[in-house]
Amino acid sequence: MRILVVGASGTIGQRITEGIASNHEVLRAGRNGADVSVDLTSPKSIAGMYEKVGYVDAVVNASGGANFKAVPELTPELNEKGIESKLKGQVNLVLLGQEYVNDGGSFTLTTGVMMDDPIPMGASAAMANGGVKAFVKASSIEMPRGIRINSVSPNIVKESWERIGHLFAGFNPVPAERVARAYIKSVEGAQTGQNYNVY
Amino acid sequence: MRILVVGASGTIGQRITEGIASNHEVLRAGRNGADVSVDLTSPKSIAGMYEKVGYVDAVVNASGGANFKAVPELTPELNEKGIESKLKGQVNLVLLGQEYVNDGGSFTLTTGVMMDDPIPMGASAAMANGGVKAFVKASSIEMPRGIRINSVSPNIVKESWERIGHLFAGFNPVPAERVARAYIKSVEGAQTGQNYNVY
Ligand SMILES: NC(=O)c1ccc[n+]([C@@H]2O[C@H](COP(=O)([O-])OP(=O)(O)OC[C@H]3O[C@@H](n4cnc5c(N)ncnc54)[C@H](OP(=O)(O)O)[C@@H]3O)[C@@H](O)[C@H]2O)c1
Ligand SMILES: NC(=O)c1ccc[n+]([C@@H]2O[C@H](COP(=O)([O-])OP(=O)(O)OC[C@H]3O[C@@H](n4cnc5c(N)ncnc54)[C@H](OP(=O)(O)O)[C@@H]3O)[C@@H](O)[C@H]2O)c1
Repeated sequence: MRILVVGASGTIGQRITEGIASNHEVLRAGRNGADVSVDLTSPKSIAGMYEKVGYVDAVVNASGGANFKAVPELTPELNEKGIESKLKGQVNLVLLGQEYVNDGGSFTLTTGVMMDDPIPMGASAAMANGGVKAFVKASSIEMPRGIRINSVSPNIVKESWERIGHLFAGFNPVPAERVARAYIKSVEGAQTGQNYNVY
Repeated sequence: MRILVVGASGTIGQRITEGIASNHEVLRAGRNGADVSVDLTSPKSIAGMYEKVGYVDAVVNASGGANFKAVPELTPELNEKGIESKLKGQVNLVLLGQEYVNDGGSFTLTTGVMMDDPIPMGASAAMANGGVKAFVKASSIEMPRGIRINSVSPNIVKESWERIGHLFAGFNPVPAERVARAYIKSVEGAQTGQNYNVY
């Protein structure tokens, strides 16, 4: 398959790329993408990426962020990052990409454990995750030409523990390589409308 | 209690207002609100409403919309209504309202059955609903001064069946009065972080 991976250089994206590179043609995207550049927060940039890349069999996204702020300090402005990046960025990757995905292809997006097991300062990210999960489930029933769509909800990963583990008191981190397998299940498997929890 | 109801003139909002008016002081809001006007899609308008209304014990929202479009026709632009109205409108009602809610007060927002039981053309609304549900759960753990937050997820209601029932094939509509009780449970009860399904 020809697989476009947005966020290919990231902690999780690297492991996904390692897991599929031997069997598939991988196109690595990101703001500084090795093969094609894209800024998920800009619909114009997403459209430009697809024009450049052309038809693919799968689109995988392992990027998208949100601000970490306690609710009393969270403002509509600070909440915009989660809206523009993790939520709209991923939804727009699907809306603008559906015509570039071959019959029976797939989209795989990213949510995260915080929507199910809330942490302090995680409300904005949880909002974005919950929106993506529900979009995946609802859109799966009417994707054109047998295209499938799933998301992966990673727990905090071992490789990110040093950087952000202090926000996840008592969580049991999982190896990024285990998270990557759920993306491979989505791409190479046959399910649709699923959110794979890797907790 | 002093209770601000946004969307008080709507199908569901009317039943909520009827259910609480005898025990509580109700402030009815909406774009053409009987007591105060607000446009949920504008943070400035929300802030202006709270300035006018002052302190309250509960904020209930029964408004917010999204476009109904099949995924192949859904564009980033058409998806904006769900983002601006049902999702950001409700989240901003909380973010901008938290300082106006008295100690131990509450917010009650609205989601909807489409996130759990998808229908054609419902992906944008489902996205917004899922975002609100996850925000409610995550924000509940750090709301200030004992303020609670819940959402209600109505099934299609009997009173809306003639207008939009054709979109909900095989659903079993519930009376708006039954949906209204879940809002009352949220306001007068003691739970937080819940999404009450009225299916
Ligand atoms: N790490 C965890 O423990 C964890 C847990 C749960 C969920 N997640 C979720 O998993 C996803 C990946 O996390 P990660 O830790 O692997 O991220 P990461 O290491 O920070 O890598 C992010 C990747 O996304 C790209 N990127 C960043 N902003 C972008 C933008 N605006 N447009 C396009 N590409 C962009 C980056 O490349 P460029 O800099 O070149 O753009 C990079 O390849 C995120 O959605 C995160 O919320 C992570
Ligand atoms: N009806 C159903 O079967 C059903 C099922 C599941 C979920 N829901 C959800 O429940 C909520 C209420 O539904 P409903 O059927 O009762 O709605 P509705 O009858 O259409 O009434 C909408 C109410 O919201 C107000 N409103 C509309 N746009 C607004 C805005 N931008 N800012 C502030 N107020 C606004 C309206 O008053 P003004 O015109 O004065 O602004 C009106 O009071 C919605 O979130 C809907 O998605 C409904």
